[in-house]
Amino acid sequence: MGIPPAFISLLTDFGDRDEYVGVMKGAILSRVPRGAIVDICHHIAPHDIRQAAAMILAVYRYFPEGTLHVMVVDPGVGSERDIVYARARSCGFLCPDNGLLSGLQSEGVLQEVWRVTNRALFAAAVSDTFHGRDIIAPVAGFLASGGRPELLGPPMATRDLVCLEALAPRLATDGSLQGIVVNVDRFGNVVTNIGRELLTSFLEGDLKQSLTINLAGRHPIPLVTTYSDIPAGKLLALIGSRDTLELAVNQGSAVSMLSVAPGAPVRVICLR
Amino acid sequence: MGIPPAFISLLTDFGDRDEYVGVMKGAILSRVPRGAIVDICHHIAPHDIRQAAAMILAVYRYFPEGTLHVMVVDPGVGSERDIVYARARSCGFLCPDNGLLSGLQSEGVLQEVWRVTNRALFAAAVSDTFHGRDIIAPVAGFLASGGRPELLGPPMATRDLVCLEALAPRLATDGSLQGIVVNVDRFGNVVTNIGRELLTSFLEGDLKQSLTINLAGRHPIPLVTTYSDIPAGKLLALIGSRDTLELAVNQGSAVSMLSVAPGAPVRVICLR
Amino acid sequence: MGIPPAFISLLTDFGDRDEYVGVMKGAILSRVPRGAIVDICHHIAPHDIRQAAAMILAVYRYFPEGTLHVMVVDPGVGSERDIVYARARSCGFLCPDNGLLSGLQSEGVLQEVWRVTNRALFAAAVSDTFHGRDIIAPVAGFLASGGRPELLGPPMATRDLVCLEALAPRLATDGSLQGIVVNVDRFGNVVTNIGRELLTSFLEGDLKQSLTINLAGRHPIPLVTTYSDIPAGKLLALIGSRDTLELAVNQGSAVSMLSVAPGAPVRVICLR
Repeated sequence: MGIPPAFISLLTDFGDRDEYVGVMKGAILSRVPRGAIVDICHHIAPHDIRQAAAMILAVYRYFPEGTLHVMVVDPGVGSERDIVYARARSCGFLCPDNGLLSGLQSEGVLQEVWRVTNRALFAAAVSDTFHGRDIIAPVAGFLASGGRPELLGPPMATRDLVCLEALAPRLATDGSLQGIVVNVDRFGNVVTNIGRELLTSFLEGDLKQSLTINLAGRHPIPLVTTYSDIPAGKLLALIGSRDTLELAVNQGSAVSMLSVAPGAPVRVICLR
Repeated sequence: MGIPPAFISLLTDFGDRDEYVGVMKGAILSRVPRGAIVDICHHIAPHDIRQAAAMILAVYRYFPEGTLHVMVVDPGVGSERDIVYARARSCGFLCPDNGLLSGLQSEGVLQEVWRVTNRALFAAAVSDTFHGRDIIAPVAGFLASGGRPELLGPPMATRDLVCLEALAPRLATDGSLQGIVVNVDRFGNVVTNIGRELLTSFLEGDLKQSLTINLAGRHPIPLVTTYSDIPAGKLLALIGSRDTLELAVNQGSAVSMLSVAPGAPVRVICLR
Repeated sequence: MGIPPAFISLLTDFGDRDEYVGVMKGAILSRVPRGAIVDICHHIAPHDIRQAAAMILAVYRYFPEGTLHVMVVDPGVGSERDIVYARARSCGFLCPDNGLLSGLQSEGVLQEVWRVTNRALFAAAVSDTFHGRDIIAPVAGFLASGGRPELLGPPMATRDLVCLEALAPRLATDGSLQGIVVNVDRFGNVVTNIGRELLTSFLEGDLKQSLTINLAGRHPIPLVTTYSDIPAGKLLALIGSRDTLELAVNQGSAVSMLSVAPGAPVRVICLR
């Protein structure tokens, strides 16, 4: 088999109209020719750190062992925010320190973190507007080709990473379970950040019942196992592919019935 | 050269806003690290099996020998539809058994088919909503790394595959040639499923003449060889890149003149 | 390490709704199985040669040495335009001869050019509508697997390539610096073709001052180093990631303030 490929994932808000993703790939592969780059998504809403933080938490475990996950959602490019590399048990994360690691950190995924300060690893000329290409890509190439993280810069404590408030769902004092919408997908499914474990505990283990959900109004919604458990056109709730509470419509669009956007608060009320 | 890469193509209706394509790639590469994944298209209209069935028929022959074509357009995910693997002479197809193989089957491309039932090949935890990631991706990794299809599950007859009606064009009793629009492309070209061979026979070998085409109205349209055979702005017909009848406008958009969508019936009338 | 991958970049106006990009990749990899294909962009506005010519000039230097850059923006497909291969010092370019190489040529990047005429290298059947798949892809496979350019067809002089007028910015007789908008990116940044060197010379080395820019009206705009040098919501100018003059709004969209599109003329006036 020879030496295995070095897997690098990319998650950005660059979209696809421009050359930004392609040029980052060129810059990465210039440093690690055997790199195998996999796009996670480039359609994060511009500058929406929270959306990207929830997405990487949902997907990192499905990638090959040793994958380097590279994220660029960087409203602060050119200002004083740091770039960091965080190592987990069997993968790593390289990104600006602006909250992108919030979900991973609160779940205890991250083990060691370094600030990326060693200019010898950057492009010869670093622009003020595109650190993805000029800093993050060459550093990704360095790491993916086996470079030691100790050479990136000083270590830092994981607790010192920038952390977004309110990403974690919680049991509120009124007895309801509260979270937020973190994605509305192509099929109109409304994805929340309320995980299976928390919901199971809240519902005392009964994952087949009718919930009352406050989300752009108050809705009684049956909690089922899969889309086709409910007749076409009806709103339903289930544990979706992110292993979190999701609202959907069998052969239809939940978002067109609910008119919500990422960031909207969700409240689950238990009637018992 | 070492061992050659294992080519895997992907054709889905997942779009690009979400993590679904990326996470499937991660799950495939976790099983077959030397896999080389090629995107055919992820912008099939949600749940439009017919559009995907026509597309795979148009492209499979252009891929390297041995390619595993993976398709996920799966409105019935979580219900009782099967997942199948179909082997052709020099490639294979893995997808839900919901009509995606209709075009290939009616053209006689498929040789052997197996139902995919061996849970030992699936992800450890299978969600009810994303079989692409939890069943199809790991099975694709199994096959692309040389796994024997006999281990997937029981064989089935190709004639037992779900087959969409009306995908095949036909000579109608009124003497016209009937088909449907299967794609409207980015350039506004209107692509039908009426193939070169059938059209040639219908036109008695004369592929340079004026046709009358019923499609959102009745149009006399010259049948030509390439876009620039006709002045800019005029409607024309030609054998397009899928080797089927296509309506186009030189330096313009046929769809904006015809206002049709995939699925619309097309009728070609011969005036002789 | 074994033999290194053969890098091939793709830049087209094919979009992502159709199978056109995927089928080109299949056709390339059928000829060069170890090929590593990198997408630069497929969302060039249909038939907009100028936009693609400016993009390839901005990115080619970031790719691995030896990359073959393949471009397909081809309004004249099927007519008499040539297909050409141009070799630069450490990479190559394969595309229709319709102006796509204009920017590279005027910057002196290209060293040798051949017309692609050897039909033995094409697909067995060449359609009249999709030379990207039937000519350019197999020829790309030939070149990327080490084929000698002398076998493509006759050499030609770089000065005989089709060259778009007005792609180069210039000092006008009224003392202003004139160029055009070549891209409006996902973030609403308005990218011009006025390069750092020319602007620096025009401004006599002072890259921190207030400019007056004529672009859909007359605007005094501060020239700064990065987005965050200016309060949120205000129009600014900087040397952007293409190393050219760019208009932007910190945490906002320049294009929604300026309402311009690619092709719009830009004039920079120096007040001293």
